[in-house]
Amino acid sequence: MDEPQRVSVDIEVRYKETDQMGVVHHANFLVWFELARTALCRLTGHPYAEIERAGFLLIVAGAELRYRQPARYGDTVAVACWVDRLESRRMRFAYEVRRDEELLVSGTTDHIWVDAGTRRSCRIPGLVADELRRLAGA
Amino acid sequence: MDEPQRVSVDIEVRYKETDQMGVVHHANFLVWFELARTALCRLTGHPYAEIERAGFLLIVAGAELRYRQPARYGDTVAVACWVDRLESRRMRFAYEVRRDEELLVSGTTDHIWVDAGTRRSCRIPGLVADELRRLAGA
Amino acid sequence: MDEPQRVSVDIEVRYKETDQMGVVHHANFLVWFELARTALCRLTGHPYAEIERAGFLLIVAGAELRYRQPARYGDTVAVACWVDRLESRRMRFAYEVRRDEELLVSGTTDHIWVDAGTRRSCRIPGLVADELRRLAGA
Amino acid sequence: MDEPQRVSVDIEVRYKETDQMGVVHHANFLVWFELARTALCRLTGHPYAEIERAGFLLIVAGAELRYRQPARYGDTVAVACWVDRLESRRMRFAYEVRRDEELLVSGTTDHIWVDAGTRRSCRIPGLVADELRRLAGA
Repeated sequence: MDEPQRVSVDIEVRYKETDQMGVVHHANFLVWFELARTALCRLTGHPYAEIERAGFLLIVAGAELRYRQPARYGDTVAVACWVDRLESRRMRFAYEVRRDEELLVSGTTDHIWVDAGTRRSCRIPGLVADELRRLAGA
Repeated sequence: MDEPQRVSVDIEVRYKETDQMGVVHHANFLVWFELARTALCRLTGHPYAEIERAGFLLIVAGAELRYRQPARYGDTVAVACWVDRLESRRMRFAYEVRRDEELLVSGTTDHIWVDAGTRRSCRIPGLVADELRRLAGA
Repeated sequence: MDEPQRVSVDIEVRYKETDQMGVVHHANFLVWFELARTALCRLTGHPYAEIERAGFLLIVAGAELRYRQPARYGDTVAVACWVDRLESRRMRFAYEVRRDEELLVSGTTDHIWVDAGTRRSCRIPGLVADELRRLAGA
Repeated sequence: MDEPQRVSVDIEVRYKETDQMGVVHHANFLVWFELARTALCRLTGHPYAEIERAGFLLIVAGAELRYRQPARYGDTVAVACWVDRLESRRMRFAYEVRRDEELLVSGTTDHIWVDAGTRRSCRIPGLVADELRRLAGA
């Protein structure tokens, strides 16, 4: 089993993302995680928008975040994402947000594949199954 | 022609809505306007969620905002909304955001009725047409 | 040791909080947690806005969320919050989001008290220490 | 008088920015405008974060938006920004959001320069006055 493949996206902090503490509000990191997850999905050759049009949803079942250092307006941060766990119907993604080398926030999100028509849990869509296994290093 | 009927909703400022200037970020007022608009629609007897399920969308075609005084975390503001103009396929809503008597922000939004199926412009849904005319004071 | 005191706030889902899946986007629950936490802080007799003005920040160090059922536009949900753990410099709050009796989302957030001037960790401000212990059921 | 200088930033639509209509919620365009404004300010040689640290705020006094076509998840849009009007204490920025050549949204925002210490209106900071005049094509 190989290392999972990492993708990294650069995100410029938006003024709207700061709060009156003068730092990025903690809820925004879930949105940044999602941007990095979108970039990782793109590596399967099937952007998430296309996967949804094919009738599948990758819904969020859980999330964990650990905030170490604040991000600020004026910063550009790098958000890394990789597949941390891959099961037949579930996946976990892991994330690290860094400014230069400094780790600001880390976290994971748990997801379930759902058939958009029935809104019931389903297996990983065949469309991306092999590619996700490859990205997971399996 | 009577005065249009006004509805007013109380909104407690959320910490997330502040920015590093220490005041509510200006984009949030469009969200607050929408909450008041939702309350006004409810007065037709058909909540907007039900109107959408009936196959109609009231999409936003334009907006104008004038910011006079900031809102802050710790404030509860009152957002008033009324029908400012009613045409066969279009409407304009007007808004005022106040803290006690002080006017903080005012604005308008312009909307077009759209058939959700065809995504084309349509007449005001019969479901709410009479009630909207009454709310508009027509 | 008694049960911690629970506070519950009612939140009407905002249209802006939905995403194209037709449900409330998962990042919004952290914002709703914060609203309930604000209400719990208010029970100390010192609203969080006042605590900040007194020179203290309660920064977020971690968060965990478990998503069970979606919330939708048209829903009003109840967000309950209580003190789950209270140490000399740290606290954990727990949350449950329900629509009627149904549990939609649960979670916790971990916090550190910080001196706003030095931005260094500090003990629970004397202003609210006794009241927080009481709320925690200690 | 020359043409004002235009800056353009590419923005990838975030899933969080969509709503249950399946398109980008209208409030997000003000946030995108702000990103483009930040990029334009950077052309003065003094990023807005630095201007704030120098004790000046460029607060929003008004906004106008015209929504022509929706943006969708999966799109990358280009947001253009330029100085539309420059007075001694006030400025107006104009914006266009396009997907390829198609104009999706246009708008303007009106701003007032404020001394961060006194929170009173002030003249354009000397730091950026000449550069803003040059960007405005004056």
